[in-house]
Amino acid sequence: MEIDIQAFVAQSIGRWRSQRSGHNLAFQHFEEVRSVVDIAPRSVEDADVIELCKSNGIDPELATSPFFMEWDAESDWDDEEKNTGSCLLVPVPDLNDKVRGQLLRSQGYAEVMPAVGDYRFTEEGMFVLVTPYEQAAAEERIWFATKNLRLRVSNILTSNGEGVLTTSFASEVRSLGTVAN
Amino acid sequence: MEIDIQAFVAQSIGRWRSQRSGHNLAFQHFEEVRSVVDIAPRSVEDADVIELCKSNGIDPELATSPFFMEWDAESDWDDEEKNTGSCLLVPVPDLNDKVRGQLLRSQGYAEVMPAVGDYRFTEEGMFVLVTPYEQAAAEERIWFATKNLRLRVSNILTSNGEGVLTTSFASEVRSLGTVAN
Repeated sequence: MEIDIQAFVAQSIGRWRSQRSGHNLAFQHFEEVRSVVDIAPRSVEDADVIELCKSNGIDPELATSPFFMEWDAESDWDDEEKNTGSCLLVPVPDLNDKVRGQLLRSQGYAEVMPAVGDYRFTEEGMFVLVTPYEQAAAEERIWFATKNLRLRVSNILTSNGEGVLTTSFASEVRSLGTVAN
Repeated sequence: MEIDIQAFVAQSIGRWRSQRSGHNLAFQHFEEVRSVVDIAPRSVEDADVIELCKSNGIDPELATSPFFMEWDAESDWDDEEKNTGSCLLVPVPDLNDKVRGQLLRSQGYAEVMPAVGDYRFTEEGMFVLVTPYEQAAAEERIWFATKNLRLRVSNILTSNGEGVLTTSFASEVRSLGTVAN
């Protein structure tokens, strides 16, 4: 199955009810997070899409299927605190290899700052994203178990890429209805 | 990277400290299980290996890298109860396609009875096992994030294979030392 970023983003659009389990490997600690994740398409002509491309030195003409993610999470680590956030993501496929490209983010996963990752699709259509950060790197794998179940495994690697500090697993079930764009 | 079942089993041999998170998708319930998993090689000449092949109508000459798994688990669902178990596993690679084959088990994952699954390796060396049971099917994906970190995602599918009932994620860190064979 060959999949490209356009098809993958199209499959991801919607509202997802997410369960995420974080494993701290050194301390064998579990974290449990329930959240609602909204993924909505953006136009390649949106000012913030063009701005994010330019701030990364990327020609905005190369942007494909940009999308906006918002989340609203409750963690068992702190019942009082609600984690909400949002992030603009802009895929930039390789011109010569449609299963690879870069993913620009207005805010990173492991650190709260803009980030650029490299993605590829496996032959099965699994999306694999590697994002280097200053103090660490993140490797994420996202795939669809069914049309309405998205699974995501994220590893936070040591900065040399040889060790894994934490690993987490999210199962995301599509909510009925659509998301306001 | 091409990997075969022999290399994969060799990488898996040892004692693993496992954290497993189960997600019940309908109820958004989390289960947390800590366990110790021992994986030890068995000889293709062992009587129980030959017996398991014969009971499945498989020529014992085709068995490759059989192994024995034992686990000792503590779940947060019942603090008093310790789940221990063991299972003999016998891979039977396809004669014409070394990245595919069958896996015979003396005891299944979703139901406590013998089971036969079909495995394949993806181009990345991820082991994918699909096992049909009477009331359900299990799809497991196992891969090595590093030499000493094995990750495992298991989905329990409805018997028609179209829905997922529960999904679970295990991170398994290799313990130092070796396991008595």
